[in-house]
Amino acid sequence: MQLGRNRIEALTDGVFAVAMTLLVLDIKVPELEQSLSSAELPFRLLALWPKFLTYAISFVILGVYWVGHHMQLSFIRSADRPLLWINILFLLWVALVPFSTALLSEYTKHRLAIAVYGANLIAIGLTLALHWWYATAGTRHVDPDTHPGLVRAAMARTLTGPLLYLIAIAISFFSTGLSLVVYALVPILYVLPGRVDIHWGKRHHEKPKPDQAAADRH
Amino acid sequence: MQLGRNRIEALTDGVFAVAMTLLVLDIKVPELEQSLSSAELPFRLLALWPKFLTYAISFVILGVYWVGHHMQLSFIRSADRPLLWINILFLLWVALVPFSTALLSEYTKHRLAIAVYGANLIAIGLTLALHWWYATAGTRHVDPDTHPGLVRAAMARTLTGPLLYLIAIAISFFSTGLSLVVYALVPILYVLPGRVDIHWGKRHHEKPKPDQAAADRH
Amino acid sequence: MQLGRNRIEALTDGVFAVAMTLLVLDIKVPELEQSLSSAELPFRLLALWPKFLTYAISFVILGVYWVGHHMQLSFIRSADRPLLWINILFLLWVALVPFSTALLSEYTKHRLAIAVYGANLIAIGLTLALHWWYATAGTRHVDPDTHPGLVRAAMARTLTGPLLYLIAIAISFFSTGLSLVVYALVPILYVLPGRVDIHWGKRHHEKPKPDQAAADRH
Amino acid sequence: MQLGRNRIEALTDGVFAVAMTLLVLDIKVPELEQSLSSAELPFRLLALWPKFLTYAISFVILGVYWVGHHMQLSFIRSADRPLLWINILFLLWVALVPFSTALLSEYTKHRLAIAVYGANLIAIGLTLALHWWYATAGTRHVDPDTHPGLVRAAMARTLTGPLLYLIAIAISFFSTGLSLVVYALVPILYVLPGRVDIHWGKRHHEKPKPDQAAADRH
Repeated sequence: MQLGRNRIEALTDGVFAVAMTLLVLDIKVPELEQSLSSAELPFRLLALWPKFLTYAISFVILGVYWVGHHMQLSFIRSADRPLLWINILFLLWVALVPFSTALLSEYTKHRLAIAVYGANLIAIGLTLALHWWYATAGTRHVDPDTHPGLVRAAMARTLTGPLLYLIAIAISFFSTGLSLVVYALVPILYVLPGRVDIHWGKRHHEKPKPDQAAADRH
Repeated sequence: MQLGRNRIEALTDGVFAVAMTLLVLDIKVPELEQSLSSAELPFRLLALWPKFLTYAISFVILGVYWVGHHMQLSFIRSADRPLLWINILFLLWVALVPFSTALLSEYTKHRLAIAVYGANLIAIGLTLALHWWYATAGTRHVDPDTHPGLVRAAMARTLTGPLLYLIAIAISFFSTGLSLVVYALVPILYVLPGRVDIHWGKRHHEKPKPDQAAADRH
Repeated sequence: MQLGRNRIEALTDGVFAVAMTLLVLDIKVPELEQSLSSAELPFRLLALWPKFLTYAISFVILGVYWVGHHMQLSFIRSADRPLLWINILFLLWVALVPFSTALLSEYTKHRLAIAVYGANLIAIGLTLALHWWYATAGTRHVDPDTHPGLVRAAMARTLTGPLLYLIAIAISFFSTGLSLVVYALVPILYVLPGRVDIHWGKRHHEKPKPDQAAADRH
Repeated sequence: MQLGRNRIEALTDGVFAVAMTLLVLDIKVPELEQSLSSAELPFRLLALWPKFLTYAISFVILGVYWVGHHMQLSFIRSADRPLLWINILFLLWVALVPFSTALLSEYTKHRLAIAVYGANLIAIGLTLALHWWYATAGTRHVDPDTHPGLVRAAMARTLTGPLLYLIAIAISFFSTGLSLVVYALVPILYVLPGRVDIHWGKRHHEKPKPDQAAADRH
């Protein structure tokens, strides 16, 4: 289902692009009452720091998940109905991020906001793991000669995020500030290369086989 | 008109991605008055449940229609002006969904809101059926050897949704809650495989013929 | 510059998809004060009719311009910097449509709103005409054997809209209602086939020449 | 990593399309109090001029950066993880532009607003320069025979914007109006052709080599 993969990518890239760009709508321009001197503006802008921080964290985390989806699809050769729907469920959680980000930016010190935000990220991560599990189980949708080490490395990498977000939620019972630090640091793990890159790199640097070349065209 | 199909897909995927992601704008972060204790937040978040429910229902229903459009286009080999405009009419209804969803989430117990929401979904479904009818009548835009069973199975599947949504509207005269249940259950029918998948699967697993391969490239 | 055309299309389709879908944000769910009976809702929804009308008109008009751009690009074989920038200017006007539509829907009887809306549509149309003129002058960016009749037919078709919108603005001095009728009817002209379709059809039904086939792939 | 480039383009085009179109949300339809005569509308629309001006400036500047990214990618043959992340950082700044534009349009005479807007544009420009530096250092991701003159010309062109925006910020200490003029004029530099076009033109007008043709397909 080569055509399908092409359009799954298009919808996915579209939802990510919109969700990432909608994050900015949460950062509102401060309105100064006429009575206030415009010297007030710097302080009002500085007071927006939680908005900028959560904007940056969510943008990068969505980037992480986009790259993760991207890498999975680069190994997937075909798709069927369940895979399509796991993908749409994945996007359902992704499109919720502007809400959970706005909630967190409004209530940075409230445990519930931290938990809702973390739960949203965990839901995205687990659905992405399900996507990988479904596609690779019995090499259903990947090349039969896909290295099992790659399958495991990608799964471990995908599940690391949700685990760390769970820890961040737990930490919030002691310090909500520390939870935010964890949220901010996790993406760095993903920006750095991992074991999975060895396989990914090989996949893309070797000359594509004829069949693969045809599939790549999509 | 291979180029055309490519760009029809791009516009369609774009409108779907934006409409699906805009749904989240209806879920507003609760604003707590300073006088209220922040212990109020959990209750205010729980009170948002109709927003989350309608978000999920609409997201999945839009997913269903996106998959349906996707499947139709995978059989369509060419396009002409009427097909292009049926497609734009289809998108006009799709882009209205964020409004009808917001209406339903605000007035979940109001029959009119349930009817407007259902009417929007019916309009999408009927336009998609028109799209299929126009493309397949006299195998105008599909391969001449397209199986008539496939044409009929896809049409039956496309019309099932509008029929069930009509029933949901009728049910609202007795119980608006039950109507919501129908809206929530219909997508499940579409997530499950149907007779049409047999044809779709064959289409994508057989080696593409040379001509078709060229068309697939778009 | 085949790659370029590919990405010009992607940006264009993206801006159109977003602009068309953002139109829905102008249709706000009516808020009923608690004191009002919910029996008020039907009247409040009916009062939204100018919003629905302008939504539909603008959606279809944007569709017309998208198809027009689409048809032009199907003949254009290469692009250079000026063509790229004419295209971005075109998108600048397209992205303004949600504003001018919201203005019109709020002030349907106000001549200025009708003029601003018309001016926006005229700007889009004239930029599209400039795009065509630049691409075809001396067959700069089209196949050297492009039929001059096609070049002229497409130009006449592109300029018809702006001319009619100018007339609609003039009519507003007598009757703003009549202007709206013109705005609503113009797109129908474009939905119907025209002389340009003869050429467009030929272009897509004849077997593509080898060179052209390579270009089509993008 | 041909697939990668394809999807990097899709995400980039999506974020640009959304960011450019979201700019329009800052231009709000004037609300006339019932007590005011509708003769007030022209004055209220004219009072929106800073919104229209900053809309146009930001739209064109985003267009400039989109074209710049576009040109870089047309030379880049492969991508790796750092390049992907430089790209996402680039998009993070791009998606902020609707905010900094809204800030500038609200406080056109406030030095801080001018500085924030300029800083946002500088961040985009420097990240784009980093993208080019990383891709071309040791011809890591470009054809080994890429002309060094091209590499330098593109870098100089990319850095010109940030330099001029820095000057615009400095000028704001004397005249905020003059800063706006600089912001409005800089894009014109980029719309005009430059030394880099000589290379770009050659790249696209010569017959693509077989390898390159394969890469172009994406």
